[in-house]
Amino acid sequence: MSSVPRIVQDGRVGQVDATVVPRFAGPATFARLPRIDEVSDVDVAIIGVPFDAGVSYRPGARFGPAHVRESSRLLRPYNPAADVSPFASQQVVDAGDLAVNPFSLDEAIAQVEAGARAMLERAGRLVTIGGDHTIALPLLRAVAAQHGPVAVVHFDAHLDTWDTYFGAAHTHGTPFRRASEEGLIDRSGCLHVGTRGPLYSSRDLHEDRELGFHVVPGVEIDDLGARGVAERIRDRVGDRPVYLSIDIDVLDPAFAPGTGTPEAGGMTSRELLATLRSFSELNLVGADVVEVAPAYDHAEITGIAAAHTVYEILSALAPRKDS
Amino acid sequence: MSSVPRIVQDGRVGQVDATVVPRFAGPATFARLPRIDEVSDVDVAIIGVPFDAGVSYRPGARFGPAHVRESSRLLRPYNPAADVSPFASQQVVDAGDLAVNPFSLDEAIAQVEAGARAMLERAGRLVTIGGDHTIALPLLRAVAAQHGPVAVVHFDAHLDTWDTYFGAAHTHGTPFRRASEEGLIDRSGCLHVGTRGPLYSSRDLHEDRELGFHVVPGVEIDDLGARGVAERIRDRVGDRPVYLSIDIDVLDPAFAPGTGTPEAGGMTSRELLATLRSFSELNLVGADVVEVAPAYDHAEITGIAAAHTVYEILSALAPRKDS
Amino acid sequence: MSSVPRIVQDGRVGQVDATVVPRFAGPATFARLPRIDEVSDVDVAIIGVPFDAGVSYRPGARFGPAHVRESSRLLRPYNPAADVSPFASQQVVDAGDLAVNPFSLDEAIAQVEAGARAMLERAGRLVTIGGDHTIALPLLRAVAAQHGPVAVVHFDAHLDTWDTYFGAAHTHGTPFRRASEEGLIDRSGCLHVGTRGPLYSSRDLHEDRELGFHVVPGVEIDDLGARGVAERIRDRVGDRPVYLSIDIDVLDPAFAPGTGTPEAGGMTSRELLATLRSFSELNLVGADVVEVAPAYDHAEITGIAAAHTVYEILSALAPRKDS
Amino acid sequence: MSSVPRIVQDGRVGQVDATVVPRFAGPATFARLPRIDEVSDVDVAIIGVPFDAGVSYRPGARFGPAHVRESSRLLRPYNPAADVSPFASQQVVDAGDLAVNPFSLDEAIAQVEAGARAMLERAGRLVTIGGDHTIALPLLRAVAAQHGPVAVVHFDAHLDTWDTYFGAAHTHGTPFRRASEEGLIDRSGCLHVGTRGPLYSSRDLHEDRELGFHVVPGVEIDDLGARGVAERIRDRVGDRPVYLSIDIDVLDPAFAPGTGTPEAGGMTSRELLATLRSFSELNLVGADVVEVAPAYDHAEITGIAAAHTVYEILSALAPRKDS
Amino acid sequence: MSSVPRIVQDGRVGQVDATVVPRFAGPATFARLPRIDEVSDVDVAIIGVPFDAGVSYRPGARFGPAHVRESSRLLRPYNPAADVSPFASQQVVDAGDLAVNPFSLDEAIAQVEAGARAMLERAGRLVTIGGDHTIALPLLRAVAAQHGPVAVVHFDAHLDTWDTYFGAAHTHGTPFRRASEEGLIDRSGCLHVGTRGPLYSSRDLHEDRELGFHVVPGVEIDDLGARGVAERIRDRVGDRPVYLSIDIDVLDPAFAPGTGTPEAGGMTSRELLATLRSFSELNLVGADVVEVAPAYDHAEITGIAAAHTVYEILSALAPRKDS
Amino acid sequence: MSSVPRIVQDGRVGQVDATVVPRFAGPATFARLPRIDEVSDVDVAIIGVPFDAGVSYRPGARFGPAHVRESSRLLRPYNPAADVSPFASQQVVDAGDLAVNPFSLDEAIAQVEAGARAMLERAGRLVTIGGDHTIALPLLRAVAAQHGPVAVVHFDAHLDTWDTYFGAAHTHGTPFRRASEEGLIDRSGCLHVGTRGPLYSSRDLHEDRELGFHVVPGVEIDDLGARGVAERIRDRVGDRPVYLSIDIDVLDPAFAPGTGTPEAGGMTSRELLATLRSFSELNLVGADVVEVAPAYDHAEITGIAAAHTVYEILSALAPRKDS
Repeated sequence: MSSVPRIVQDGRVGQVDATVVPRFAGPATFARLPRIDEVSDVDVAIIGVPFDAGVSYRPGARFGPAHVRESSRLLRPYNPAADVSPFASQQVVDAGDLAVNPFSLDEAIAQVEAGARAMLERAGRLVTIGGDHTIALPLLRAVAAQHGPVAVVHFDAHLDTWDTYFGAAHTHGTPFRRASEEGLIDRSGCLHVGTRGPLYSSRDLHEDRELGFHVVPGVEIDDLGARGVAERIRDRVGDRPVYLSIDIDVLDPAFAPGTGTPEAGGMTSRELLATLRSFSELNLVGADVVEVAPAYDHAEITGIAAAHTVYEILSALAPRKDS
Repeated sequence: MSSVPRIVQDGRVGQVDATVVPRFAGPATFARLPRIDEVSDVDVAIIGVPFDAGVSYRPGARFGPAHVRESSRLLRPYNPAADVSPFASQQVVDAGDLAVNPFSLDEAIAQVEAGARAMLERAGRLVTIGGDHTIALPLLRAVAAQHGPVAVVHFDAHLDTWDTYFGAAHTHGTPFRRASEEGLIDRSGCLHVGTRGPLYSSRDLHEDRELGFHVVPGVEIDDLGARGVAERIRDRVGDRPVYLSIDIDVLDPAFAPGTGTPEAGGMTSRELLATLRSFSELNLVGADVVEVAPAYDHAEITGIAAAHTVYEILSALAPRKDS
Repeated sequence: MSSVPRIVQDGRVGQVDATVVPRFAGPATFARLPRIDEVSDVDVAIIGVPFDAGVSYRPGARFGPAHVRESSRLLRPYNPAADVSPFASQQVVDAGDLAVNPFSLDEAIAQVEAGARAMLERAGRLVTIGGDHTIALPLLRAVAAQHGPVAVVHFDAHLDTWDTYFGAAHTHGTPFRRASEEGLIDRSGCLHVGTRGPLYSSRDLHEDRELGFHVVPGVEIDDLGARGVAERIRDRVGDRPVYLSIDIDVLDPAFAPGTGTPEAGGMTSRELLATLRSFSELNLVGADVVEVAPAYDHAEITGIAAAHTVYEILSALAPRKDS
Repeated sequence: MSSVPRIVQDGRVGQVDATVVPRFAGPATFARLPRIDEVSDVDVAIIGVPFDAGVSYRPGARFGPAHVRESSRLLRPYNPAADVSPFASQQVVDAGDLAVNPFSLDEAIAQVEAGARAMLERAGRLVTIGGDHTIALPLLRAVAAQHGPVAVVHFDAHLDTWDTYFGAAHTHGTPFRRASEEGLIDRSGCLHVGTRGPLYSSRDLHEDRELGFHVVPGVEIDDLGARGVAERIRDRVGDRPVYLSIDIDVLDPAFAPGTGTPEAGGMTSRELLATLRSFSELNLVGADVVEVAPAYDHAEITGIAAAHTVYEILSALAPRKDS
Repeated sequence: MSSVPRIVQDGRVGQVDATVVPRFAGPATFARLPRIDEVSDVDVAIIGVPFDAGVSYRPGARFGPAHVRESSRLLRPYNPAADVSPFASQQVVDAGDLAVNPFSLDEAIAQVEAGARAMLERAGRLVTIGGDHTIALPLLRAVAAQHGPVAVVHFDAHLDTWDTYFGAAHTHGTPFRRASEEGLIDRSGCLHVGTRGPLYSSRDLHEDRELGFHVVPGVEIDDLGARGVAERIRDRVGDRPVYLSIDIDVLDPAFAPGTGTPEAGGMTSRELLATLRSFSELNLVGADVVEVAPAYDHAEITGIAAAHTVYEILSALAPRKDS
Repeated sequence: MSSVPRIVQDGRVGQVDATVVPRFAGPATFARLPRIDEVSDVDVAIIGVPFDAGVSYRPGARFGPAHVRESSRLLRPYNPAADVSPFASQQVVDAGDLAVNPFSLDEAIAQVEAGARAMLERAGRLVTIGGDHTIALPLLRAVAAQHGPVAVVHFDAHLDTWDTYFGAAHTHGTPFRRASEEGLIDRSGCLHVGTRGPLYSSRDLHEDRELGFHVVPGVEIDDLGARGVAERIRDRVGDRPVYLSIDIDVLDPAFAPGTGTPEAGGMTSRELLATLRSFSELNLVGADVVEVAPAYDHAEITGIAAAHTVYEILSALAPRKDS
């Protein structure tokens, strides 16, 4: 118990050793990685933000971090598709959840920002598991404080650049408008991928463009393929510092039923994972995976898709041997 | 379509006629009763309050009103257990949902109060379907404005007289403390029924008593039976105006899985319904049924229990032939 | 495969031997009993009637027989509560399903009657798994052809003595009115147990009484207990030949979510099984268990309740050692 | 309540205003559009036909219309993929359900035809939500009465041109044979899309061809893509009046588990929606979306796919600005 | 993160403070209690044994410990029914899972025994969450090594005193026969509670009695009530050291669908919890709660029942103020 | 019952006639084919192996055979995509389940081998429904005894060539290493298709290659398409005797949630079925479809995918008219 056997490779403390402790046993840190208090130096910290007071339709993403962690038990140390061992080439830890106020959007946003800033003093990179998309704003504040305005690559069925909803400036539909207004993002390098479904009006798209976003809509993905999408991303972001924000509803409801505002006609998980593999070539400085609502999931298919998504992000962050 | 055939009895417009329109067809007003705009005089209005920003654990009660209505399609016009036809001896309507702000507890509470007050100008009695228990406070404000301080009979696994939670004075755990503080309830006549499960401390019970509540805890129900519980209620409330507030989690999770803060060891639906039948002898002036969270329900068992609960409330409100 | 090892006791061919073939393996005849073509003499035949064209609300009981059989795999040979080995003291077989027309109520009813009559030439007693309650009428025709008018003991949330529905004389809500009109039942000895929930009007009860039924309503069960209910049954049926018809919705939705017209406030499975044990003292000549709709079941809880119900019926049919 | 705030654009009464009434609140008309009795002139009426007595396997499509409406709450007014505002360029209403006899196939078919004819006197176009596929026959009768024989484009896993089943001429497997025999369809312009899975015999295909249908089988869709399928459709139907009939089981069970006769290997919802966008160039005169069986759905993924399907149909019906 | 705020009372480190960290946030130790490595002195250790290679029907109890922990997040510090604060009057910790071999029953049993013995050197009492019932044998070995033969009070639908199954001496159906044979239990003081459902033969009961067990069968519980059952337990065990073993299938499938060998007609969770409260008067030296199989659970109703069961056990173990 | 009407074509006894017995009625042999004891000569026998003691994560595949059979009720006699009638051109039967020891991996493996060898004396080809992948080893032993070393084409998310797990040489992760070591497979002709997700280390791939396997990883399928994958298979296996082993987790969790070790990013069922159609050109000598775990399935989508997979295998085995 106190001395759980772990894989240690290249000096990094890795996953619980599955040849001694079955994958279904033991606590569910992400990928059975060490807690942050179990290691001294941290390259990448995974944090959970169990929060969903910003959702406009189905709530429940507050249970997202626990669910994604539980769904990550099968992850193993070597990523053959990327030819990288993400837990050996960098020290990855699970930093637990940020505790935020479930009754106050404003206080919660302040708490997420403060928590992320504090964490960034210990870890070079954060990968956040939501929670609803509201949290992208305070996360971007923390990231921009380090890196200046960043290029946001945003996978989502929706634009999330609406203005207000019921008078609320901070909801899961508005983070990227706020971020653009606050100067947190580089308006010359942002991109939505996978948007689809109806909008309020065509004006949504015009305003979105002014806020700094190009769009690779879902309807073009059949033609582009993962390779074409990756190219569009590269063209747009160049060598800017990139923040990657993935709303799991970019996947079709068949692949991600457990989410709050599902739209038919989405990406497959194979397409998403393939696209993410191209991020190893970008200057990725932070990421989040949000909007997993477990009450609507079945057999963890959404949780597993999200866990693999986080795993590909960690792989993209991993230093390459030749770099 | 425009002219749906309805049962009309004793001058009251009742349910859609199930011999012409199958129960699974047509819109889901509660019990397939008329909308409020389809009749002129209203005795009892059923309103929904789709709101759950006050929940501390599982959200989802915002979908409660639609779910309970959908689960009420099988209700028929005559209640043999009470020997009353609740839709013929009084005009009951479905007044639809109050639209409230999902992002602001304070604004939502104000909207519920305003909506209830407006509705009480058209209908003598309101029966509200939640939504989370936060809404009991503004509902009590509207009721007390008419009737003065009322005796609250509160079926719930929990006391709901906590003080604040994360600094929030208005949540689903606090409405009856606030109501007591505001003088909305008659401290000499209130009662919790079915409370069970752990508390924060024994102080909770002392404070609760000072706020005006006696308790029939869940552990005594086996001994008391529905008849004994009804007697305890009668003894406590006497002829005071009574407001009945039912958190569906008073039922055991087996009978009501679809709720936000389930506790093992609860009432059966048979016990609850039997107890409610005794309310025909009380001076019932309003009621709510709250905390149905459909994402956790299965095969509508929670929804059906809630729909029957509302039906027994309507039966208790119905004037008796000899009165 | 061809030679499945079976328990043989007192000359009767019993269940597949669970010490050789795990309970989760092999085909799902009821309780893993032999097929009718595997034995020569038959005392009791279990038949399925996969049919649900007579349902007025949720369909799906056509999958009931397969589901109850699959849910009966855990049943073992000795019933300690009744101190009887129902498969050793009588030869019980699974006679498979009657194939009936899913698109014609009238043809299906004729097919059920013909099938039941044919089966009664081979087996002394039939226990039928539905299917919806429509099938009780042709089953009663077949039983009455042998025994004359029978006393029906009918466990159900509903009366099932309505007249017509959408012009249809034969639905799951009408079998006992038709049976009474046809003289198939002994009007001096019939009884409903567990009825509850709203009716169309108080006239339903008056007509029901004229058709030959007394009622033990659900609301009296708390007071009566299983023992009291059994006494009421005995008093009503005396030594008449008894046909037992059990709609699984007599159970509360918590105990039987997988059914078509669920009503809150029902019996527990413990109460039902205890009551059924008293039938060993009656002159039971046939039985059915109907209205299991698997699409609404969860983890086979309805199926298991139904399988145990059939098992208690088989135990009640079993000759006692001293008789 | 009586005065729900609505979007009004170009003189058309549109959806409930989601900035005032949250999407999870209020009654579930399709896309929260007005009821037919709330507007005077109607271009397109959406009707539900809750009926499933014609199904040969899993029933439950009788609950389809309510489920698709409930699943349509997230739809917004502007369709960016088609660059059209379907509720502003034409008046769309929800005309409620046709009440039909659940116990008589023949009477139900007559009722659907009568209901559709009556509705077509008020609305230029009908989009029908089933219900099982049996209803396509009476719908085609009503449409052909207006337009003469129509070209049917039929998305389905199955041919639905079987002859009889259990002696029944009218089931969900036979509507297009009947329609062809009755001269309702233009045999030179009909097409199945997405058929797959086993047939009874190769003769099925020969007879189908004689009845007027070409086939784009599911196995060719990988090669054709949505663009190729659209081309095949255009080539076949030309400028004939087109009736579009979509059995949701054309989607793979992963995308539409909630249906009655699922077959592996189907279309994705992205492919279906993309194909439907090409219908704006055709002379579309009516459509149905059928076979949604909610008891088998999960997290509304089938319902959402069906709701988006209806939305694309409405978009295809919408007059283009330049036309 | 590293410094989670906790309730500390009477020197004991208790639950995470829910006024700072919402209950749905943070890691799921049982009741959000500290890990064993976070405190120095331990009175009671809760351990998980994720193991199910001994099950004869539905597997899945290997996921039981994680599920029960996740379902225990709502537990609060004060138990009003027992008037005790179980985390303040004794130091309770979550000692994590014992990692055992999923492929070898024998090795797993040895590992559980070794793990339990090691743990008993740090903690006075163990409360174990299974896993399947196989683990009761090694747990009894560890307990008997400390206390000598113990009186076992065994809540279960089944006797679990079978001999072998498929040649295996150690399965979830045999632990108490083995324990009796090994002299681990006091044959003059053991008792089954809640057994029901069919057996292999009446011999099962005779052998069971010789192995040292009396029985309070499920069919007597209606008459006895929780109070009567408690009396029967007290009479049987006297002041012997008591080991309490609870198979969650003692509950009816309605209350505990998530288990491996469900039998209809079981206890309610209210009855079980009430009975457990009487154990504070016994000399309780250890306990287990087993056979929670989450894949068959719904909305955590089984998990919550199990979590409350553990909570009542901890309350029964808590020293009383006056003792 | 005893004389179920069946389709007989070209002298082969086929499925139950669905025009007389509805597909939802009657026992669930695979595709409603005859039992092995109902015919004399057998070309292909379908056997079930309900066994899952070899699984490392989610158990439950012991219920796989029953589930796949139940999910195969809709299969019809003619396969248009392959233009073959698999039940008319060869005699296919359902040979039931092999009963194997659920508590001993070694004994179970011996029983599967013995059972398969015995069966191969009656039937030319076996198609096995698992059960977990452990059973591929004894099945290969039986096949290799007839055909010598075979080319294995293995569809799976995983390599299944690991060495030992918890000291166990025989688990669901090791069958193909053991088979290679035992000389059962032709190391020059084996191939994995669809592998994806993380591995333990890059060494896994090197060892796998030495054991005789090439890989078509999941990430290449988008580029290759079903046609390209089929070509890669043909190139690798040539005219060797081929054993086809399909772990249903080769499908994405969206298409096959009901499995034990799901990995995101898998094949669609359309791709799998299309690829399998190419096997008619290979020298296919046996096959298995394993790892269907029904407790995690929904609406039979996994079961249906597996049933169609078996159907395509049977079609590939069917002699072509011109051969």
